[in-house]
Amino acid sequence: MFKIQVQDKKSSARAGIQKTAHGIIKTPFFMPVATKGGVKHISSIELKQMGVHALISNGLILSLTPGLEVIKKHGTIHDFMNFHGSIFTDSGGFQIIRETLFISISDKGIIFKDLFNGGKKILLTPEECVRRQNILGSDVAMCLDDMQHFGNTKEVYKTALERTHAWALRCQKAHKNRKQLLFGITQGGTCLDLRKESCEFFAEHPFDGYAIGGLGLGEGITNVNKVAEISNEYLPKDKMRYMMGIGNPSEIINAVSRGMDCFDSIFPTRNGRHGTIYTGKGRIHLKNSSFRMDTKPLDSNCDCFTCKNYTRAYLKHLLKQNEMLGLRLLSLHNVHFLTKLMEKIRKNIIAGEFPAFKKSMKRYYEGID
Amino acid sequence: MFKIQVQDKKSSARAGIQKTAHGIIKTPFFMPVATKGGVKHISSIELKQMGVHALISNGLILSLTPGLEVIKKHGTIHDFMNFHGSIFTDSGGFQIIRETLFISISDKGIIFKDLFNGGKKILLTPEECVRRQNILGSDVAMCLDDMQHFGNTKEVYKTALERTHAWALRCQKAHKNRKQLLFGITQGGTCLDLRKESCEFFAEHPFDGYAIGGLGLGEGITNVNKVAEISNEYLPKDKMRYMMGIGNPSEIINAVSRGMDCFDSIFPTRNGRHGTIYTGKGRIHLKNSSFRMDTKPLDSNCDCFTCKNYTRAYLKHLLKQNEMLGLRLLSLHNVHFLTKLMEKIRKNIIAGEFPAFKKSMKRYYEGID
Repeated sequence: MFKIQVQDKKSSARAGIQKTAHGIIKTPFFMPVATKGGVKHISSIELKQMGVHALISNGLILSLTPGLEVIKKHGTIHDFMNFHGSIFTDSGGFQIIRETLFISISDKGIIFKDLFNGGKKILLTPEECVRRQNILGSDVAMCLDDMQHFGNTKEVYKTALERTHAWALRCQKAHKNRKQLLFGITQGGTCLDLRKESCEFFAEHPFDGYAIGGLGLGEGITNVNKVAEISNEYLPKDKMRYMMGIGNPSEIINAVSRGMDCFDSIFPTRNGRHGTIYTGKGRIHLKNSSFRMDTKPLDSNCDCFTCKNYTRAYLKHLLKQNEMLGLRLLSLHNVHFLTKLMEKIRKNIIAGEFPAFKKSMKRYYEGID
Repeated sequence: MFKIQVQDKKSSARAGIQKTAHGIIKTPFFMPVATKGGVKHISSIELKQMGVHALISNGLILSLTPGLEVIKKHGTIHDFMNFHGSIFTDSGGFQIIRETLFISISDKGIIFKDLFNGGKKILLTPEECVRRQNILGSDVAMCLDDMQHFGNTKEVYKTALERTHAWALRCQKAHKNRKQLLFGITQGGTCLDLRKESCEFFAEHPFDGYAIGGLGLGEGITNVNKVAEISNEYLPKDKMRYMMGIGNPSEIINAVSRGMDCFDSIFPTRNGRHGTIYTGKGRIHLKNSSFRMDTKPLDSNCDCFTCKNYTRAYLKHLLKQNEMLGLRLLSLHNVHFLTKLMEKIRKNIIAGEFPAFKKSMKRYYEGID
């Protein structure tokens, strides 16, 4: 299902292909987040047009609203969203840190408050989590994991790790959709020995691919780098590695050089809505007064819809007035930028020029090593 | 500048052409509202693609934010918004009913609180109003008017009327942009004798076109019909008639049959955001539970982006979750619907079938007479 096409000689970066029921994803790649079935401000058709080949949605939330029967009536989640690329569904483990949803956790599963249906309690077991994703018909289902906040004690991470491993095996057993891949999620917080233990567990218990969970929670780029390194060392090389919640250009570039293949994050759309814009020459903050009279596009080398049609001054004005059109145009640019960045990274890996490309980005994005 | 192509034989409806510095507008037509330079959720390029040939923006507000110098740096308002169809700019008279902006009014002009620049007071005289619009470079500038709330006494409307007329002449004198048309605005509230007086004033003092102001404020369709009738009778036939603030299909169809040519309203986008959707067979309210499992498009005969790609169930779900993508897709459909409705109206006038078309719409839209 996953094939490495080119292994970079000077780093662990690799260019590959992941097959899913909906085609081929060229790796490394970035997935925009469509938690409730829609990426903020950007339609599935537009995403496809800008070269997005995979999205991540949330299996738990979609099963609660609009509900499995509504999506089933359409066919699969692809038909519901009208996105016929690859769709990943997250399991619900991430929702442990949502205080409004989470009630309690035990070895049985997670008890959530179903805010979408009057607040009634629901028990999400690993089996139930997989059953829901099976029905949604995503290309890649994620195992239910016990994901804890950044900054916990090692004991907390250790308990979560063991539960995550036990649940992964239960998920595997419950998994019935033959067209759907099932990815394991490694945990361990920022404790590298636990991360190693988690990778070794999954090396012994093969899944279709592996996610590195519990990141993007404020742990900082140095920790992300270290977790990527240990995951690269101990996870099977011949399967895809998906760093969940990682979406800054610098974090992505560092992680690719450490053998990571896949990323997702709400950062590009959220940053866009706040006026933090990615360009080929670093971030700009559109709220700065210096852009008030600036008739240049956001990024002169970008061919996205926003850059082809609107000036920084116009976009800054819309942003300042909180006009929905502005938030949309800025989100669109940032998602386009990250999509094209991934294409550039891949091209450079294939051409044997990834280390040079990485070096060239250092002056523009802080944190690249 | 305005030419009637076909005058309907059984009603006062007419199909015509209005020339502006940016081309030709086929009448009757509807203008989406871009008060601050952007239609909610929909870009200028998309509007052009769906057949929108004219927009209305607000000269006062754009002159305050981002400021005249920013727009001038781009060229005209067309370059700023990247919309190269016709752009109308409203004068600021409408902002009298905005309690956060309005301070006081006298024969001199209107004193506003400039909320966009620290709340300082500004005096908008008719001359200053025209100067600002001259610089913005819109195709059609509107005279400064004294527009009062619906439900006032006749005395209030009478005073407002006289001020509006005096200001119109001052606007005409101050108007220096030869490429820009200047439209007079009639007032008079719902008092038909005042409406007649206002029309007669403008018949004696010719402008490039005439707007019927002070409507769309809760006066109801019967009042709108009556004001349209009296305006049709007493305004010059050979100039365009623009009913400001009118945007419901039934009001538009009635007004067209009474010789009105142009409309604008925030209704299609606002209704869209609230789930009230126009279709060829009447309105639907997407919040109704009956649409939960509905895999049909909003309108089976519509070829807009939304109807081509998404189901009612998907859109209902996005709307319920307040997802920006949903609000956008629904706004897009409604603006598309009204644009196509105007094209259909025009086609039917030209074919001599407008009365039959009007009749056929009666069963779907309440209020059509």
